Amino acid sequence: MSTLHPALAALTASLDPKAWSLDPAELDAHARDWRGRYAGGTPLVLKPASAQEAARMLAACNDARIAVMPQGGVTGLVGASTPAGEVVISMKRMNAIREIDTANESMTVEAGAVLQTVQEAARQAGKLFPLSLGAQGSAMIGGLISTNAGGVQVLRYGMMRELVLGLEAVLPDGRVLSGLSGLRKDNTGYDLKQLFIGAEGTLGLVTAATLKLFPRPASTGVALAAVRDPEAAVSLLGHLKDTTGGAVSAFELISGFAMELVCQHVPGARSPLEGNPDWMVLIELSSAEPDRASQLMEAALESAFEAGLVEDAAIAQSEAQAARFWALRENVPEGEKAHGKAAKHDVSVPVSRMAAFMREATEQAQQMIEGSRVIAFGHVGDGNVHFNLASIAPGAGEEFIARAEPATRLIYDLVDKHHGSISAEHGIGILKQAELKARKPVEVAVMRAIKATLDPNNIMNPRIIMGLE
Amino acid sequence: MSTLHPALAALTASLDPKAWSLDPAELDAHARDWRGRYAGGTPLVLKPASAQEAARMLAACNDARIAVMPQGGVTGLVGASTPAGEVVISMKRMNAIREIDTANESMTVEAGAVLQTVQEAARQAGKLFPLSLGAQGSAMIGGLISTNAGGVQVLRYGMMRELVLGLEAVLPDGRVLSGLSGLRKDNTGYDLKQLFIGAEGTLGLVTAATLKLFPRPASTGVALAAVRDPEAAVSLLGHLKDTTGGAVSAFELISGFAMELVCQHVPGARSPLEGNPDWMVLIELSSAEPDRASQLMEAALESAFEAGLVEDAAIAQSEAQAARFWALRENVPEGEKAHGKAAKHDVSVPVSRMAAFMREATEQAQQMIEGSRVIAFGHVGDGNVHFNLASIAPGAGEEFIARAEPATRLIYDLVDKHHGSISAEHGIGILKQAELKARKPVEVAVMRAIKATLDPNNIMNPRIIMGLE
Repeated sequence: MSTLHPALAALTASLDPKAWSLDPAELDAHARDWRGRYAGGTPLVLKPASAQEAARMLAACNDARIAVMPQGGVTGLVGASTPAGEVVISMKRMNAIREIDTANESMTVEAGAVLQTVQEAARQAGKLFPLSLGAQGSAMIGGLISTNAGGVQVLRYGMMRELVLGLEAVLPDGRVLSGLSGLRKDNTGYDLKQLFIGAEGTLGLVTAATLKLFPRPASTGVALAAVRDPEAAVSLLGHLKDTTGGAVSAFELISGFAMELVCQHVPGARSPLEGNPDWMVLIELSSAEPDRASQLMEAALESAFEAGLVEDAAIAQSEAQAARFWALRENVPEGEKAHGKAAKHDVSVPVSRMAAFMREATEQAQQMIEGSRVIAFGHVGDGNVHFNLASIAPGAGEEFIARAEPATRLIYDLVDKHHGSISAEHGIGILKQAELKARKPVEVAVMRAIKATLDPNNIMNPRIIMGLE
Repeated sequence: MSTLHPALAALTASLDPKAWSLDPAELDAHARDWRGRYAGGTPLVLKPASAQEAARMLAACNDARIAVMPQGGVTGLVGASTPAGEVVISMKRMNAIREIDTANESMTVEAGAVLQTVQEAARQAGKLFPLSLGAQGSAMIGGLISTNAGGVQVLRYGMMRELVLGLEAVLPDGRVLSGLSGLRKDNTGYDLKQLFIGAEGTLGLVTAATLKLFPRPASTGVALAAVRDPEAAVSLLGHLKDTTGGAVSAFELISGFAMELVCQHVPGARSPLEGNPDWMVLIELSSAEPDRASQLMEAALESAFEAGLVEDAAIAQSEAQAARFWALRENVPEGEKAHGKAAKHDVSVPVSRMAAFMREATEQAQQMIEGSRVIAFGHVGDGNVHFNLASIAPGAGEEFIARAEPATRLIYDLVDKHHGSISAEHGIGILKQAELKARKPVEVAVMRAIKATLDPNNIMNPRIIMGLE
């Protein structure tokens, strides 16, 4: 074990013993990501209990030019929270729900609060906090803000950026921006909180946030529908929006191969649809009126049948069945993982380009990489698809990903052609840095300038997004 | 007439003659605001026809350290678009609607497009662009973005910030950020467009934007309801949200005095409610289903009566009547103006604090300023009220505003006490600069740092928001 930097030794000596750890097991636990893809090391884990304590920690590191890495639940997918020598600032002790204001439809929570706990607290107050994603049992609010998380309810409620009313954040020099406002409208200069949302911890440390709440829907309807192709899926979405207004709360595409892998590998998983259609969508409608969502669903699917937009459909008849339908969608990554390694691409294009993009990318990628097949699923209603390329033969390893490398470049080029994004919701981290720099030079220059302004000593997650020059 | 700066003379010599003007009448027209409150002067009006032309103009001014002021429709209320010597960059020639993508529910428009034209183009494409405010016949998209405009549909659709998907902006040094993306999801580094939204032209020049569109509601219902007090108004809003889901598209408070002035001064204005209730709300519901909005309105008002939340109500029976109800609300500033000058405050507080804030502010302000009475109206559903103090006696002039000065400070202090904002939707401009600096020192320091990064020569609207040091 190396000796601790004198500035860190001085810092820990001045802190509450609960606020830091040198325990090798704890250091090690904070140096791994949950998929086991990135592994590094950290000399020290800091665990602030308040913005003020976090400010002291950051100021000490800033003075000594020591790099830090903020950590939440470490459920990210792009390597932005696995340290390679940085001091870890874990937010796990700041997990309080500070206030729920039901009349204002807002709640103030600390950065270390786990998403599922936040959802549950909102529910108990009779409200809905809509952000919902696979990792919600571990992901923390601070990380979800720092990555501008998406998930399955974006279509109706927006991404994390749209759910944040106010932010408390600590700048690297220890200044605290106390913006925990529950206001819907506040035009007093630059909206500084926007800088920290999606910045992957590179500009400052998010310590708490005031979040938007919504009325809980009184009824929800879930269906699984077979569609001819992604084009029909996009048309069906337009039809549902037009006929049900704001009722569509989720619209998730599942390719036939993805469904096959789920049913094959996940115990108890069974598709309610006959045969195995090439393409399916999971549809969720919700309404403020009891029973109304299922009425809307029946009427909308009936007219969609008549319009030739849907081939087959199953409407969940109970909450339990609805949960089983959702599990089919949520277990796609599980089924995919059991099948073998795949080259993964979290991309978005305008909804109007989705069908063309998927057709071209599927044809060209499968042709380019022998024995490959596309696994496509996700938030097609937002123009966001998880477009992965797998080996048809099971049991593929890292060698398949290496072999699929040219397809990744092809897919990103097609994304560019269709005016899309190479990272719709997962962020840049380490994984997509080279692609970002190659594709957005002016933007990266402006990002670097802003980074240098707020973090002149480059101590905040310095390897992330633009990375070291 | 003074001689033109040599750098400007060289610039104009190199430009298309349509791209600039030295005509005294045109210079004068660009140096006044529509209320006649701010008047200044400009040596030159530049009129770019493209982002590239704007980039040449800005780069030339930047090289010569000449201050510029971007101008749209000049309908702002805080003095951010009346030059005092700055070169004006008028966006009026860049008024094209570049593209409407109905399947993606987005449209790309230039900064000089007038809001009403944009609304109309969306309507002709079968979609809704929801931003709606009194000045929509003159206000331009670039200005509406630069001020993060609000208006009467924020409750359902959000402020301008939430309606912008992508932005094309020119930096002072002439670099162009080409971010005209129609994507709902794009997590590729810092979301730079957020910097320009609400920056009042101090960081760069917005030249075009991709905006969100929505399905057009199939039915709309409008009612005017009498409520006991602002507290009952807030409770009524909660009731409507809970019983109609997302159907509430506007919820506007009108005080009895405000209504009295409208009916007295605006030809043809007549309240549909008996007597003159102390407080009223204009309610708009909308639905994707034909006829449904009026059914929802009747049911919701009936249950609100039973719950004692509403004293009296009139539901519009036709579109013409709905328009007349809306005109009552929209003519409040007109009635107010005819009555005399008033001290105006565009403030917000959390919705849960609205009733207490209004009670305290009304009591204390009216007591403090002899012969005064509060005119309150506006977007109470967003926690935003236009809280103005008028003289009871008609015909008040500037001397009343001077006399009411201490009440302004009182009102802003009460806003602070209730965790509110001293500028909910109008911005800072010149008008609220001193208040901003006094109340948000850390934020102002960070804003200055960002300004210095993007605009190191301080040429972009230098007197605005933080102003000169």
